[in-house]
Amino acid sequence: MKRTVFFISDGTGITAEALGDSLLAQFEEIEFEKITLPYINTPEKAAEALKAITAAGIKDGLRPVLIDTIVNDEIRQILDSCDTLKIDVFSTFIKPLEHEFCTHSSYSVGKSHAIVEASSYRERINSVNFALENDDGARTKQYSKADIILVGVSRCGKTPTCLYMALQFGIRAANYPLTEDDLTHNGLPECLLPYKEKLYGLTIDPFQLTAIRHERRPNSRYSSLDQCDKEIRFVERLFASQQIPFINTTTFSIEEISTRIMADRGLHRRLNN
Amino acid sequence: MKRTVFFISDGTGITAEALGDSLLAQFEEIEFEKITLPYINTPEKAAEALKAITAAGIKDGLRPVLIDTIVNDEIRQILDSCDTLKIDVFSTFIKPLEHEFCTHSSYSVGKSHAIVEASSYRERINSVNFALENDDGARTKQYSKADIILVGVSRCGKTPTCLYMALQFGIRAANYPLTEDDLTHNGLPECLLPYKEKLYGLTIDPFQLTAIRHERRPNSRYSSLDQCDKEIRFVERLFASQQIPFINTTTFSIEEISTRIMADRGLHRRLNN
Repeated sequence: MKRTVFFISDGTGITAEALGDSLLAQFEEIEFEKITLPYINTPEKAAEALKAITAAGIKDGLRPVLIDTIVNDEIRQILDSCDTLKIDVFSTFIKPLEHEFCTHSSYSVGKSHAIVEASSYRERINSVNFALENDDGARTKQYSKADIILVGVSRCGKTPTCLYMALQFGIRAANYPLTEDDLTHNGLPECLLPYKEKLYGLTIDPFQLTAIRHERRPNSRYSSLDQCDKEIRFVERLFASQQIPFINTTTFSIEEISTRIMADRGLHRRLNN
Repeated sequence: MKRTVFFISDGTGITAEALGDSLLAQFEEIEFEKITLPYINTPEKAAEALKAITAAGIKDGLRPVLIDTIVNDEIRQILDSCDTLKIDVFSTFIKPLEHEFCTHSSYSVGKSHAIVEASSYRERINSVNFALENDDGARTKQYSKADIILVGVSRCGKTPTCLYMALQFGIRAANYPLTEDDLTHNGLPECLLPYKEKLYGLTIDPFQLTAIRHERRPNSRYSSLDQCDKEIRFVERLFASQQIPFINTTTFSIEEISTRIMADRGLHRRLNN
């Protein structure tokens, strides 16, 4: 059974998507076709959205599901005119909040992902630049300014995790790749010694690592299961002997890896949302 | 009046934060202290969270607001035992969805940001690598594989936008910096000519550009208002003469820039969430 679900927003649609994905993930046996319609912020765009929704209902033979974060009443009324199941986030939750705060909401559109402050925006950009400049051990001189330094073997997920932490939370995350040289050597590379309390290890299942490395350099020693297995054994031993906390990234998404590390190290977002 | 708001989740907390930020943004006159408690997935952690919530209520003299995406009933019941305003996403919306789909939800924890498929994860990592390898005009040979190529002057927001599109949506985004040389030259740089339909321009207010560049290279010609103003005038003229669509990034967040470009160009996410 296939159901069509529309995530509709007068802003970016990111909140509707995140919420919708969470809810739909609870219904594993149903196949969903998910369609995001962002920036539905004029009656004309709402009328067009309505056409798409109506067409999907006719095609499926079942009414579509609407998960919407639309604030504007006029636009919501237009979408109300066809038969759907509506998960209407604002109507549902704004009223109890207004009551709690003894005030009226401003009902303004697309607030959540608008720039709140220029300073917060620059903080975010600076964190992205920090991650890029301190990626892959390229530079180690700025480690004193890092909030966290991820360590692990090549292709275990360090770079995307650093970039995600920078973009989503404004965290200054550097990363240093532990090579075979580092791993057969006794102890930590010298440049990391002064920053031991900032280190966090990533490890990964050798089978997944070999698959990822094969895409990069097919049929090389670097991507062989033997090599991956050896590096992973070395790196986990190093984490243990140096008492570096670590996480196995194999079954986690980048969001999970990032938020688990932050929770574990007590790191707080630098961005004021 | 200050109110403490807890975003609580048995997973990453990202959905609760996104939803909560959207809702709270509607109450501009209230000062919020926002606290995210992710991975509240055992009775012990719930009991600890409860302590923090109770303490905040006593300190504020007003009951805290809880915005939670907790799925597990036992954990939710523990949190129910203190006086708060609860915005309880799952209890509110799962029931109508179960009714609509004529089935029970699996009520499993932290589904939304877990890895759905290994292939989707690799798609995402590959997009991040693509953005990094094709950043700042470093390489132009892979432009045929790009979904979009952002063009604009130095420090107008190209790199963070490309990385965001890669991480959030799996879009393959390259970027090419238009230098003064490119801009005083007539027409587009040669390497961009075959990919005109993939180009998307970014522009920015010269005052903001000069502030951003000053952080980078203080008191240089590069960061002077004169220079920024000149480059912006040139680049906007180029976008117009070459009919390249563009967006002014000055008042937009990275989320907005990314989703507006995608909506404008009809780009769809490559990730199956």
